[in-house]
Amino acid sequence: MKPQTSLEILAEALRRLPGVGPKSAQRMAYHLLQHDRDGAAQLGRALMQAVEKIHHCAMCNTFTENDVCETCLDPERDASLLCVVETPSDQMMIEQTMMYKGLYFVLMGRLSPLDGVGPKDIHLEKLIVRATDGLVSEVVLATNFTNEGEATAHYIGEMLKARGLKASRLARGVPVGGELEYVDAGTIARAMLDRRTT
Amino acid sequence: MKPQTSLEILAEALRRLPGVGPKSAQRMAYHLLQHDRDGAAQLGRALMQAVEKIHHCAMCNTFTENDVCETCLDPERDASLLCVVETPSDQMMIEQTMMYKGLYFVLMGRLSPLDGVGPKDIHLEKLIVRATDGLVSEVVLATNFTNEGEATAHYIGEMLKARGLKASRLARGVPVGGELEYVDAGTIARAMLDRRTT
Repeated sequence: MKPQTSLEILAEALRRLPGVGPKSAQRMAYHLLQHDRDGAAQLGRALMQAVEKIHHCAMCNTFTENDVCETCLDPERDASLLCVVETPSDQMMIEQTMMYKGLYFVLMGRLSPLDGVGPKDIHLEKLIVRATDGLVSEVVLATNFTNEGEATAHYIGEMLKARGLKASRLARGVPVGGELEYVDAGTIARAMLDRRTT
Repeated sequence: MKPQTSLEILAEALRRLPGVGPKSAQRMAYHLLQHDRDGAAQLGRALMQAVEKIHHCAMCNTFTENDVCETCLDPERDASLLCVVETPSDQMMIEQTMMYKGLYFVLMGRLSPLDGVGPKDIHLEKLIVRATDGLVSEVVLATNFTNEGEATAHYIGEMLKARGLKASRLARGVPVGGELEYVDAGTIARAMLDRRTT
């Protein structure tokens, strides 16, 4: 059944949000229309603008409105260190520790064969080009300590070593099975200090 | 701190959705940008369209794109029965029972003094005008069986009786403390049959 009314179309569109089922979508639609039409219009505009303006940084692959993001352009940063993370949230967590002054590469995912996510989907060719710029002397693998994150770190580590690059991994201060986004900054700071060569 | 980038603006705007906190909003923003830009654009358009086109039915107060909604215009419906519900979801649940062929009035809320929701906020003046059209002979109060829904039904019942109108209440087949939206159709069907004069 194809959605017909603006209300049905809205409820259908809200289901595109992760973790939102049919009931939640309908509640959200009613809420916005009844109590927060300004919010709905604002969200509508924000979505259109984001889709139009945001793309990937040519260097680190994170989301940005420019060709190269602010972090990659920062001259204060140590260009010999490259930290590989799964998502921009993970990058933000590492930034909050104030313990790392190098640059980043954001995979925007993790290897996950069961979900059909292979090396091409996490931009590993772009990572290789980035890591072999002649300035990077060490790649810090800061993927999550989940099974998939570990496998991704291992895969990238082997790939980098085959090209003569030094790869290290955040120390196991991060609890096994945990996700970076939900770990406290102190633990991540410790793990950054204790990173080990793979 | 005012949001700066399109990404921050989007995450901020997603928080206007009910039940979405800062972490969820960020996850949603990343998900849409990384995996479902079509969905994001579609949601953006759906929101703009909904805000522009949807308003309240002049007769029953539900959401509609026309002056009067389809249900109110349906000539097959029994114009002598008017069923008062809190939300369009509740109306939909009653429709699904196939036991009711009258018309509706949607309050778009319930009396809730603690939240500052008084008689004016649930359009009781519009309901009185609607119920005194000379055709309505019975008003079925189908607000939720929560404390607030019961209080609302009682308040409306007294108001209608003072104007010489007959008011009835869904039978207590609906579990006390329950919300219509989550009750099975069979129970609601029974409650509709057993409605009693208040």
